[in-house]
Order: sequence, then C-alpha cells, then structure tokens
Amino acid sequence: MLRRDRLFLAATLTAVFSADLYFILLPKLRSLGRPHSCSCGPGNLSLPRQGGLATPLLSNWTSVPLPDSATPEPADGGSKLEKLFAHTLYNIQTPSLGPEERLLQAEQLIEYYRRKVSRWERHMKLYSEAAAVANISVTEHEVTYDPDASWMKFHLGINRYALYSRDDPAVLQLLKDMQNMAVVSADYTQDEKALKGACDCTQVVKPSGHHLKLALKMKNFAKAMFKPMRQQRDEETPEDSFYFVDFQRHNAEIAAFHLDRILDFQRVPPVAGRLVNVTGEVLQVTHNEDLRAVFFTSPANNTCFFAKCLYVCKTEYAVCGRPDLLEGSLSAYLPGLSIAPRISIPNPWTRSYTFTGREEWEVNPFYCDTVKQLYPYNSGNRLLNIIDMSIFDFLTGNMDRHHYEIFTKFGDEGFLLHLDNARGFGKHSQDETSILAPLSQCCMIKRSTLLRLQLLARSEFRLSDVMRESLEGDPLRPVLTEPHLLALDRRLQKVLRVVQRCVRRLGEEEVITKDFIKATGKPQTATVGKRVR
Amino acid sequence: MLRRDRLFLAATLTAVFSADLYFILLPKLRSLGRPHSCSCGPGNLSLPRQGGLATPLLSNWTSVPLPDSATPEPADGGSKLEKLFAHTLYNIQTPSLGPEERLLQAEQLIEYYRRKVSRWERHMKLYSEAAAVANISVTEHEVTYDPDASWMKFHLGINRYALYSRDDPAVLQLLKDMQNMAVVSADYTQDEKALKGACDCTQVVKPSGHHLKLALKMKNFAKAMFKPMRQQRDEETPEDSFYFVDFQRHNAEIAAFHLDRILDFQRVPPVAGRLVNVTGEVLQVTHNEDLRAVFFTSPANNTCFFAKCLYVCKTEYAVCGRPDLLEGSLSAYLPGLSIAPRISIPNPWTRSYTFTGREEWEVNPFYCDTVKQLYPYNSGNRLLNIIDMSIFDFLTGNMDRHHYEIFTKFGDEGFLLHLDNARGFGKHSQDETSILAPLSQCCMIKRSTLLRLQLLARSEFRLSDVMRESLEGDPLRPVLTEPHLLALDRRLQKVLRVVQRCVRRLGEEEVITKDFIKATGKPQTATVGKRVR
Repeated sequence: MLRRDRLFLAATLTAVFSADLYFILLPKLRSLGRPHSCSCGPGNLSLPRQGGLATPLLSNWTSVPLPDSATPEPADGGSKLEKLFAHTLYNIQTPSLGPEERLLQAEQLIEYYRRKVSRWERHMKLYSEAAAVANISVTEHEVTYDPDASWMKFHLGINRYALYSRDDPAVLQLLKDMQNMAVVSADYTQDEKALKGACDCTQVVKPSGHHLKLALKMKNFAKAMFKPMRQQRDEETPEDSFYFVDFQRHNAEIAAFHLDRILDFQRVPPVAGRLVNVTGEVLQVTHNEDLRAVFFTSPANNTCFFAKCLYVCKTEYAVCGRPDLLEGSLSAYLPGLSIAPRISIPNPWTRSYTFTGREEWEVNPFYCDTVKQLYPYNSGNRLLNIIDMSIFDFLTGNMDRHHYEIFTKFGDEGFLLHLDNARGFGKHSQDETSILAPLSQCCMIKRSTLLRLQLLARSEFRLSDVMRESLEGDPLRPVLTEPHLLALDRRLQKVLRVVQRCVRRLGEEEVITKDFIKATGKPQTATVGKRVR
Repeated sequence: MLRRDRLFLAATLTAVFSADLYFILLPKLRSLGRPHSCSCGPGNLSLPRQGGLATPLLSNWTSVPLPDSATPEPADGGSKLEKLFAHTLYNIQTPSLGPEERLLQAEQLIEYYRRKVSRWERHMKLYSEAAAVANISVTEHEVTYDPDASWMKFHLGINRYALYSRDDPAVLQLLKDMQNMAVVSADYTQDEKALKGACDCTQVVKPSGHHLKLALKMKNFAKAMFKPMRQQRDEETPEDSFYFVDFQRHNAEIAAFHLDRILDFQRVPPVAGRLVNVTGEVLQVTHNEDLRAVFFTSPANNTCFFAKCLYVCKTEYAVCGRPDLLEGSLSAYLPGLSIAPRISIPNPWTRSYTFTGREEWEVNPFYCDTVKQLYPYNSGNRLLNIIDMSIFDFLTGNMDRHHYEIFTKFGDEGFLLHLDNARGFGKHSQDETSILAPLSQCCMIKRSTLLRLQLLARSEFRLSDVMRESLEGDPLRPVLTEPHLLALDRRLQKVLRVVQRCVRRLGEEEVITKDFIKATGKPQTATVGKRVR
C-alpha cells in the first residue's frame, strides 16, 4: 500500500510539474517578446506574485493565452469542452486502486444483483396473481439480467477518490440507459414512504409538498430517482421565498451533474433528462396502490399526479403531463445502503430552517476557527472538501445544503457526495454570497480546485461555454436558460475574488493548500495532507 | 300591503311599457324608412319575430341605434355608464317599503351598534392592561360612535328586493370609507377560526391554503373582509387547475361587485380595493396572538403572513407586502347573523368537488325537469334567481358556486346573495359554458334580466366599456386586464345565443318570463309570478 502511495505521489508531482511548465513557464517565455497584455477587468485575478515551480503565477492565468490556441475564441468553433478535458489539469492520472479503495467488489455486487432479480421474479409472480384477482391491469415488461449493465459498472467504479472517472464509457452508457431504457416499475422513494402520509402542523418547513419524486426501475435493474418538472425554466424563484420551500428543479439536478463533472469533482451521481410518459412509465407499471391512487385527469385532460402526505390533500402540488409526457430528471441511484452504507453529517455551515433563526456562522466571522478545532475538521481534507462543496453550491445558487454524505467505507478521508442539487438555479439575477461562507471565513482552498476554476475563467474554456456545450448532450436541452449560464461566469469571478482577498490578507502559502496528494493514514488517525512543493 | 303591491305593479307596467315604446316601436318606425341594416355577425340576436307590445323584437336590439344617439359610439366621449344608469330600464321605481320588507329596523341596529361599542371599550381596557404586562405593543386607534355611519345606512337599506339601491349615497360613502378609513383591528374571519388549525388529510380539496382572508374593523365599526392579492392580474389560472383549488382573486371580488351593479342585481355587498399596510393595519392592530404569530419577514425584507391550519406549515402560501403595502379587496360585511340570520342552500347545479365525480346535471340533460318539481324551485322566482346567478357566474367565469345564501327574514321569495366571487376572472381565454347549465337546461330567463343583457350587448352600452368605466373608480385600477373585459362581451353574446336557441325551440312565451312584478304570498305558499302582458 505504501508502495502505491509513493507511485501516486510521483505521478502527481510529474503532472503538477507539467502543468506548471505548460501554463507558467511557456507563457512567460512567450510574453517576453511582446507588451504586457493583461487587462485589468474584474475577470483578472491578480494575486501577489510569488515565484516557485509549484506556485503558479496566478495573475497570468486569466490573461495569457494557451500556447496551442493563439486566439481566445477558437476560430474553428471547435469544442471547448473537449479542449478542457484534454487539458493537462484534467488528465492527472488516478493511481491504480487496491480492493480497499474501491467501494464494492465485483463478486459482491453480482451476488446482490442476482438476489434482486430473483426477488423481483418472485414478487412479479405473486403480484400478477393478485392483480388478476383484483382486476388491476399492470403492464409487464421483460427484465434482463445483464452483468455488463452500465449501472453495475458505475457502481463498481466508485472509489475513494470519486464516483466515476470522467471518460468512463460506462457512465456515458448509463446516461443513455436512463434516457431511453424501458421502465419496468415505479414507486415512491424511501424518503416519501418514511413520511407515511403523516401531517404534522408543528413542522414549519418540512415536509414540503414540493418533494415530489419517484424511484423508477429500468429493465436491466438500473434504478433512478425521477424528479418531475415543476416550473418553467425561465421562472425565477420569487424573492420572498425561503430557500427551504423553494421548488425542486429537475433542470438544476441535470445541470449540477454537468457542472460537477466540468469542475472535475465527480461527486454527483450521473443525471439525465427524460421525457417520461407518466401513464405508461409510471401509472401502468407501479405496484404501489398508494401511488396509483394519486393519479388523476386534470380539467384540461392531462394526466397528473401528486405526492403523498399533505400533498394528498393538495392538487396545487400536482404535476401534469401534456397529456402524458412530462419532463424530469433521472438521477442514478448509488449502491444500496445494505452493501455500501453512507453516513449523513450536518453541514457546519447549515442554515437556520426557521423564519427568524440565525446560525452561529452567520453572526460570528471567526466561526471557522471554531470549526477547525473540531473533529473531523481538525485534520485531513474534510474542511477543504466542505469548501469545494460551498463553491459548487455557490455556482449553482443552492442554499439548501443542510447535510452531506460520505461512504462509511472510506472513513473520514472519503470524498463528500454532492447529492440533491435540485434547489440550485432558482435565481440567475442574484448571487447568494453567504453560500461561500466556508471559503471566505476559512480562507482555504485546494490548489487543484483553484487551478481548475482559473482555467474556467479563461475565455478559451469559459465556464458558461463549456456548460452550454455539455448540456447540449442532454435530451431536455436547453437545460439552462442563457441568464443562468452567464450567472455561472459572474459567480466564478466572485469566487476568485474571494480567494484573491484571502491571499492578499494571509498570503498564498496560507490560503492555497497543495493537494494532488493522497492523504495517508487510517480514518481514526487522519492527518492534514502534507504540503508538497 | 296589497295596496302597495298594486302600486308597484302599476309602476312596473308603466316602466315596461316605456321600455317597449322606446326600444321596440320607435326603432321599428325608424327602420321603416331605410334598408334593413341588420348585420348578421355573431353579435346579433335573431330570435323569431313575434309581435306584441311587451314582447320585444329581439332581432332589432343589437342592430338598431337608440333614437337619442345616432352613432353607436358617442362622439362626445361621454360616460356610457351614466347613460346606462339613466336608461329607463335602470330607473324602474322600487315600491316604498314596509317594515316587513326591510331587513332591519333602525332602533334594532342602533342598539346593536351601541352594544358593540361598549363591548369594544371593555375589551380594549382589559387588553391594554394585559398587553402592558406581556410587553406587547398594540397601536390603539380612537374609535367613533357614528349613528350616521355609511355601513349603518347600508345595513338599514337592505330590503327584500336588493342589498342596496344603486344610487344610494350611503353605498358610495361606504366604498370610500373602506378605501380610506383607519383600521382599528384585524382578525381571522369566523371561517378561519372554525378550522382551529386542524389538518385533515382525508380532505381532498378543502381547506385550501389559498383561503387567506382577514376581517378588518374600521374606526367607525364598519367591518370588511380583506382578501389579499395572490397573483398578478395577467396570470391566468393554469389549465390543469381544478376550480376548487384555484386562487381567490382580490380583483375578481372587486369586479364582481361592479358587474352585479351594472346588471342591476344589487346582490353583491359593496367591495372596494385598498392598498393595505400589513404592518400598520394588520399586525400592529390585531389582538389575536395566532394572527400575530404568522407574520414574518421574507428574505427580500418584505412583511409577509400566511393563513392558519395547513398553511401554518406552508410559507408557499404566504402573501407579502412591498415592503408593507399589499393590494386587497375589502368587502363590506352584511349585518351579523344574530340580527339578520341567513341560510345557506346547496346550489342544485353544484359541481362535484372530487377529481372524477360527476353531478347529475352534468350527465342528465333533463335535470331541470326534476329540479322544477322540487321545493323551493317548484314555485316563485327561485329558479329564475338561480338562472340569474348562473348568468352572473358565467360572465365572471366562476365555477365555484356550491351554495347560495338568502336572508331568512324574506323567506323563499328573498333574493339570492351573490357572495364570494373571488374565483371568477381566472381565465379570459376560456368560456366555461357549463356554468350556464341552469339557463340552457331550464330554458327560462327573467324578462328584466334579458332586457338588460340585450342593452349591454349594444355598442352604446357595451358591457366591457361600462365595466371599464365603473372599475376606473376603484383605487386599484385597472382592476381587470383588457382581455378579461373583452371576454365579458364575448360571454354576453353566448348568453344571448343560449336564450335565442331556447326561444327557437320553445317559443318566447315559454322562455322569457315576465317579471317586473312582486311575487305575492307568504314563503310557504309562494306561487309562480303571474305573467303580465
């Protein structure tokens, strides 16, 4: 294991060195022969210059064109996304993984899958008999057992560094499967079932009638969470809405997956858009009588359904097809909790879910100092991961990150899952800088994250352009409206300015944490990742 | 009493004769000397011609200009509304009223008012002491005892024929008072209190979170029901919404009052628009802790509040000022039930308040024959009054008339109150002809109603024009958008076409019921009003 660590370290150092050579030294040489072309607009980061191989001169990052693209906008209209993903920074090799660094073992998952199939077959036999007696007609789809199914490969690919590798063909196939594959059953999610239709008037904010989501099972047993479209893409969240009662947006869920991939985090499970036939792909394939009971035909003759609990009383909360087709997001399920347990941990920067309450971080500017003392934020990368997450959430505008999840198997050094992103992209005209509190209060950021953000601030890789291009691949394109895409660029600049202010105050050394290393040690004895020059 | 009846009969006959002379004979004489100018557009009613003094030749009604206005559009741009109200049809004298025909006696109401004032004073004394102890600051407004208050006069003017007479200065003053007078207290309405915050999941449709209304008391003890603005005037009800979960619209409440007045029904209590300061005129003057508790400040720093029950859990249902000012409708309260009891009777043409249910009238085209056999629809004017109400509701597009109310004092011959009109004016682009079922299935209409509808179909008095002009007097102008105003004209034509089809099928004699008479007899022995030629 130690040997592998050393190999990884060497590979990483090589990559970092190449990146420095590529971006720092070469541009420097190029710029020697011509006048300084730095424009001083807000888009330019001008951190104090500090020399050194592994410390990029950040002021150059947004002003110097890449050697291989002399014009900021490629004249050939080539793919910015492809260029981005071909960039050195996006091609740092992952070390080969030992069994302990993979979430699941193949045998284990195949066994799990087999059990699922036989349980399904038993269930279908009983159900068909009961349905015949009760005179319920259910469309029966053939299911297939396919050990090469894309969802299996996705689950097997999850490791201690990320949910998937960006160019994994299995992930692309999984997206396609979620877009097209026949749905064999539909049901409420476990969350919804847990509510059991209970009304609780003392609950000020939850459950909200807006939590309308279903679990869909595909013919090869892939499972996806379906979040239906609740509002038009150009409808902004009303200014008086609290974030915790905001709609869940299917397009935010899709866009968040693409953004996470573009940031090279790979912490959001694959999400695809799909035009779901709510009659054929939900009503006629569900075996849940409760779910069947919430379907109705609207006065306009559209097929509609609403969620459980309070919502049973509320047609205002219903969603309707046109007449049966309804846009929605399909998020790939993670492996079941029985084989891949996760824990849910309160976000130290959680918000007060009341009308008037304020959390400590909102009133105490030195809150981070307290957090830094506390386990598990006092060692390892956890706090840096929280900061990554806050940047991600700030870019999407998601204020609803009350918890985060990690796989227990990877312990405290595991990456944070960025699940449930549907409350992003509600307002394009407003940047909620409070979401950045972890970054602005702690004044720390991973070097790898900062480098990628800086890359995405450059016109050659402009975040809005690569997002637009990436989202073009989704069947529900355009997933985001132009104002939302452009807001990403504006917010990215704001993130960089926060880093810039931190560096001015504390120095680069303090602020920009050298990562690209694998933290060592067991969860119980996690230590802060060593800085590498 | 009989004597007064006879006098009234004579007055009415004179009026009808004048109307006939004015509209039928004179235009006929005029049209003799020129080619037939009838255009055959959908706007023209062409009932089969039948001669006779009291049987207007309806085909002429919309094609022949009035003798006193040679051009359809007055060249002087004069007030169409004034001309309408100056019309003979709108100036049929009400008989002088005996005590039994008035809802209230002055002494009784004054006594009631005095008791209210002294109860208020006692309450305020106790409340101020308690508030001082609890450290609650409540704005105390001076109240005045004014036996000449406009609301007193309005209450005293209610009689067996109508809620008010159109040119009663007290009603105009009451509208002004509701628009401007200081609010001294605010509370939930009795309806809301009856819910007592109960959640009932078995209730599919009610209570809806959209029932957000408050009772406001003015400094002279006038009481008004405040319905706040829930949506913009140009937002149409979504096509998938059921009528029973539709928003209550403050502007519909205002517009319905004006329409009812223009139809000369006077069955809707006065309604005025007002920009209410929800902080100063609700929060700071309420003595109800529950109401105070539902106020909050939104993320956009606006003052918001929401309703009781389910809604306590639901900020989605909240309404917000900007930052404190909020548009709303103020509907004058009727006299308290203790002094003027009313009964609420199910509308025979009520709808099924479920997703799939259908009422008999929706499937049985001969439903009216059944209704006609049943008390109280088998005698008197009750069925004609229901038909009036259906025309009124069709014009506004209100599908939510499940009950109607009458004052018990006037028994079965009392007029129907058209209360609660906030579910009208939801869709301008759609005419819900099912609302007209009472008219189209029974094929009956009061002659007085038909004559006024025909008048309003003429360009000189075009309904949309007089409504626009009438609504101009409200502080929240424009109360209705142009598409909603124009929909009134289109719907009016549809009403007239339904009548026309009935007349073609059954003959004018059967369809157009001669009224303008006072039905005689006691409630128990009510008979169908005699037809008068």
